Amino acid sequence: MKTWNRVAIIGVGLIGASIGAALLRRKLAGQVIGIGRRIESLDEAKQLGAITHLTTDLASGVADAELVVVCTPVAQIVEHVRAAAAACPEGALITDAGSVKTDIVAEADAARQSDPAWRRGVRFVGSHPMAGAEKRGPGASSADLFVDRVVVVTPGEHSRREDCHELEAFWRSLGARVVDMSAAAHDRAVATTSHAPHLIASAIAAATPEEYVTLTAGGWLDTTRIAAGDPELWRQILLSNRANVLASLERFEQALAAMRSAIEGSAGEDLEQLLREGKRIRDAVAS
Amino acid sequence: MKTWNRVAIIGVGLIGASIGAALLRRKLAGQVIGIGRRIESLDEAKQLGAITHLTTDLASGVADAELVVVCTPVAQIVEHVRAAAAACPEGALITDAGSVKTDIVAEADAARQSDPAWRRGVRFVGSHPMAGAEKRGPGASSADLFVDRVVVVTPGEHSRREDCHELEAFWRSLGARVVDMSAAAHDRAVATTSHAPHLIASAIAAATPEEYVTLTAGGWLDTTRIAAGDPELWRQILLSNRANVLASLERFEQALAAMRSAIEGSAGEDLEQLLREGKRIRDAVAS
Repeated sequence: MKTWNRVAIIGVGLIGASIGAALLRRKLAGQVIGIGRRIESLDEAKQLGAITHLTTDLASGVADAELVVVCTPVAQIVEHVRAAAAACPEGALITDAGSVKTDIVAEADAARQSDPAWRRGVRFVGSHPMAGAEKRGPGASSADLFVDRVVVVTPGEHSRREDCHELEAFWRSLGARVVDMSAAAHDRAVATTSHAPHLIASAIAAATPEEYVTLTAGGWLDTTRIAAGDPELWRQILLSNRANVLASLERFEQALAAMRSAIEGSAGEDLEQLLREGKRIRDAVAS
Repeated sequence: MKTWNRVAIIGVGLIGASIGAALLRRKLAGQVIGIGRRIESLDEAKQLGAITHLTTDLASGVADAELVVVCTPVAQIVEHVRAAAAACPEGALITDAGSVKTDIVAEADAARQSDPAWRRGVRFVGSHPMAGAEKRGPGASSADLFVDRVVVVTPGEHSRREDCHELEAFWRSLGARVVDMSAAAHDRAVATTSHAPHLIASAIAAATPEEYVTLTAGGWLDTTRIAAGDPELWRQILLSNRANVLASLERFEQALAAMRSAIEGSAGEDLEQLLREGKRIRDAVAS
């Protein structure tokens, strides 16, 4: 299994700190440099054994890194990938952990043609580790966060095969199952499997009058769990994947409208058939 | 803590078998008679230690019972409560475990005035143990199912205080937290905290194309978990509580429409504010 002398992680929240912790616990990296704005988070990550070094200066943090993982919120990823590309060594591999991939992959493809930093041989392939959900911060991190979780790797138009394979091997070395697809296909799929459900869960919670809260049980708690996620991060994700989220919401609204009609018309058999279709798809996924 | 010589349970699925197991494990009942249609389920419940005796004949099963708990699907509860009232001893306490309460409580109030079986002193108070969710059958039962779970007790217009207190003490003896409210208030609340979320979870699952299933992670799994529930049981529940479910869906659809408008208009601050409201209510409930 490939080991790294020096890995830089930009953003040491739940995902970034978990990557560092997994690398160090599995002895896959000699040094893990945590890069962030807030010294408190970096200190916490270091105390937790998620990083070996820390800095608030991005350029010096990535200066000797063989691998740079950008784990900042979606709205900042393009900027941080650009800054990392300008300051990292020739031949370094850069990836990110953002939940929306089209913009960052297109940006990297474009920069590769025109930007001097990229032309000198910086490599980029996008990633999306599907882990984390509603928690945040280094305190929620875990060296086992990626074990048996799906990480999507999204090659761009100009990505080289060997770079993709190197990145896939990196995620597998943390225990993840890797799925390879285009950024566009990824963004369409996660709009349905993650982004729209987040919005819907939040709407269920928002539409629950507080006086009913004592009558919430397992079903409500499960259904609304992700509504506890960070509103600012989710605002960025939902707006970055706007068109796909709206298309996915439309499909959901059609499914719900059919169920509502069946209830309005007391059409028991139709309703049961619609519920059966939902159960069939839910049962197809191992819980 | 009150103990019972003989408790009859009509319907030994998840809820019925869990009540029997809890009574026997806690030594709160000498005999627990399981009553059902399918001898296989009754045998299974007996092997699991959830009942001590079994019969497919309702009248003989309740003949000597001090307490009768009707745990059959919502559509059959009225019929089974009536049959139990006609065959149980004078003074027996009957309750049910249905998720919708208005019809059964109204029926019992009406019968108390007119039906000879009830006039001879049978007592009824409705219950709704909020436990169980998507599993079913005696194999899924647990003697601890009710520990720290909410059980709603719904007195009718003509219920006597001491009967309610006896029933509340029964549920508390199984470890539950008891909440007391009218059947109408209960049905309004659970439409929002349980029935509408079930429908919405099912619609999320139904609107997920199967080719995206590999990209489902924790969020989708949590949000759709209850969609695995039994379609026939849920059809009954949703139609029994039709008006409240439709009103609750309308509130949900308004909340979701506001979020969708914010996304359509790329109104980041509005969207974040709406997500924050969902988070506030979710965070108010301990997970």
